[in-house]
Amino acid sequence: MAESRLTGSVRVVGAGLLGTSIGLGLRARGVDVIVADASPTHVSIAVDYGAGRAAAATDEPQLIVVCVPPDVTARVVAAELEAFPHAVVTDVASVKLSVLHELRASGADVSRYVGTHPMAGRERGGPLQGRADLFLGRPWVVAAHDGISYQRGSVIDDLILDLGATLVEMTPEAHDSSVALISHVPQVVATLMARRLTDAPGAAVNLAGQGLRDVTRIAAGDPGLWVQILGANAQPVVGILKQFRHDLDHVIDALDAPEAVGNRRRLAEELLGGNVGVARIPGKHGQDTRYTQIVVMVDDRPGELARLMGDVGEAGVNLEDLRLEHSPGAQIGLAEIAVLPEAAGGLVDWLAARGWRIAG
Amino acid sequence: MAESRLTGSVRVVGAGLLGTSIGLGLRARGVDVIVADASPTHVSIAVDYGAGRAAAATDEPQLIVVCVPPDVTARVVAAELEAFPHAVVTDVASVKLSVLHELRASGADVSRYVGTHPMAGRERGGPLQGRADLFLGRPWVVAAHDGISYQRGSVIDDLILDLGATLVEMTPEAHDSSVALISHVPQVVATLMARRLTDAPGAAVNLAGQGLRDVTRIAAGDPGLWVQILGANAQPVVGILKQFRHDLDHVIDALDAPEAVGNRRRLAEELLGGNVGVARIPGKHGQDTRYTQIVVMVDDRPGELARLMGDVGEAGVNLEDLRLEHSPGAQIGLAEIAVLPEAAGGLVDWLAARGWRIAG
Repeated sequence: MAESRLTGSVRVVGAGLLGTSIGLGLRARGVDVIVADASPTHVSIAVDYGAGRAAAATDEPQLIVVCVPPDVTARVVAAELEAFPHAVVTDVASVKLSVLHELRASGADVSRYVGTHPMAGRERGGPLQGRADLFLGRPWVVAAHDGISYQRGSVIDDLILDLGATLVEMTPEAHDSSVALISHVPQVVATLMARRLTDAPGAAVNLAGQGLRDVTRIAAGDPGLWVQILGANAQPVVGILKQFRHDLDHVIDALDAPEAVGNRRRLAEELLGGNVGVARIPGKHGQDTRYTQIVVMVDDRPGELARLMGDVGEAGVNLEDLRLEHSPGAQIGLAEIAVLPEAAGGLVDWLAARGWRIAG
Repeated sequence: MAESRLTGSVRVVGAGLLGTSIGLGLRARGVDVIVADASPTHVSIAVDYGAGRAAAATDEPQLIVVCVPPDVTARVVAAELEAFPHAVVTDVASVKLSVLHELRASGADVSRYVGTHPMAGRERGGPLQGRADLFLGRPWVVAAHDGISYQRGSVIDDLILDLGATLVEMTPEAHDSSVALISHVPQVVATLMARRLTDAPGAAVNLAGQGLRDVTRIAAGDPGLWVQILGANAQPVVGILKQFRHDLDHVIDALDAPEAVGNRRRLAEELLGGNVGVARIPGKHGQDTRYTQIVVMVDDRPGELARLMGDVGEAGVNLEDLRLEHSPGAQIGLAEIAVLPEAAGGLVDWLAARGWRIAG
């Protein structure tokens, strides 16, 4: 067990997915975690799950992490600042500026508060979805403001580093406009696309493939939560939605007269813009252009993939990504291996010499 | 090798992803496949790849499958009908009504033509992406019209069934409005979302996670091809885009005044509509519920994944799916292993006993 940077107790308020995951992650490093929730049932589930212990009258937490829905975040943060006058308090809500404004307006002691936002989650919520490694390698935004001292704020850094996340500092304004773009507007767009399916003929919906599934997947999110998030970040979201509508109007105009001079070129420009935009998203994504893909055919029986991985390992090549594609009923799977470009040629020869069929 | 339903030769015109996959699938059932393409290089790649043989002067194909871009499909179909007066001709373009109209207008013999559309594809095109099992279990639409006899049309059924696809009959009109909804409009929506990223600050884009990746994935598609598809199916696409814009206006109005009476309820209704729509999409959704997921932590160095696969293989358990998740900068990868539910418990114990850390 690696030693923790945090030295005192951490009180987690709200035992949902994020609260439970924070508790599990900190417990794994030996931190004393106190779990609090308006629901005693949630507390006992989280405690049974290993996310911490129930609160006691003598608790003197060093740090309090508020993990409740956005609508009540400021109120709960203010109450915690009041109840624990020596603790630093943070929250993990997906909007940051409105919470800070509300706290300042209520006269709360923001010299002990910094808002944060871990960029991690799962489609389903609740304590039982919690995972100690939920934040591993994910960005965790600290929405810094100038009302808290560097020394006090450093306990937040300890929390983030103890959980294996990557600390990203931003103003609350920059955070809110960033998540509007990369999270809140995509949520609206996926929702509006999915809405078009509600009264579509079954024969049409039955033709759907992975493309439609991917575009609409996040539209399955909790409406109650998303109303709060969109409402609390309305201004940046609506600004981007209006730019989206401007482009949409262009496409509609072009398709209203597809044969008119210049309209195909306008369409092509929109589509090219989409190519450029999607290429800016970091990390792997179907294919990561930093790596070369090698596709190897693998028989569908135990041990075959192990033999392939063994041969790759013996070649001394590190796998950057690996995906097994397997059509239902097919006797052959395709292992898609991503490696550094300089390693690809040698690896293909090495594998071919060992009898592997390279598919492309 | 299962016996084929097709009894004569099949001529495939256009050796891209679909043409090559059709050739590979039919060759696997012993059908004589002739590969033709405007590019001699493409023909020789497809032939080397096992998708069929080059054309000969004595060819008398029973069936011709035209697999060329939508813009030139009708012209190539007409030329094939003319060149082979005893063959039935089909095409696989993603729009059906415009091709039929163009053929009728040109005076082509549509008593030997039916258009079809296999609902299968990959992000990347070209002959080397071809796969014999590309159509396995996927819907394949036959866009029936009353100008061809039942007897003649049945060879199309044989093609589809020989390739393991599921035959779906629709009018060309119903096909075009269906694919507008489940394929063409999602392409526009993903494109317009991805466009918003083109001039976004890097700090914002760097926070992106799987949600944005999924919503925008298909925006990486080929603009040249999509201009043709959207142009050829403009009317149904623009109809749905206008309904989408109507809903978008609602959301924008609500977010312009998020505190106004009734606006949160309007937002919630849009979001709920998205929940209902996404639930109508058939098939698996992220996780395949037939399998149990096991997540194993794997150190990021050569050979580790091989060692894991070796241990899984020794357990005698077959992997149904495998995915490596690896955040940029993290020293740990997460191998997500899907196995049959009855094998999961034993495998977790087996792996834990060999020192693997199971993450969830």
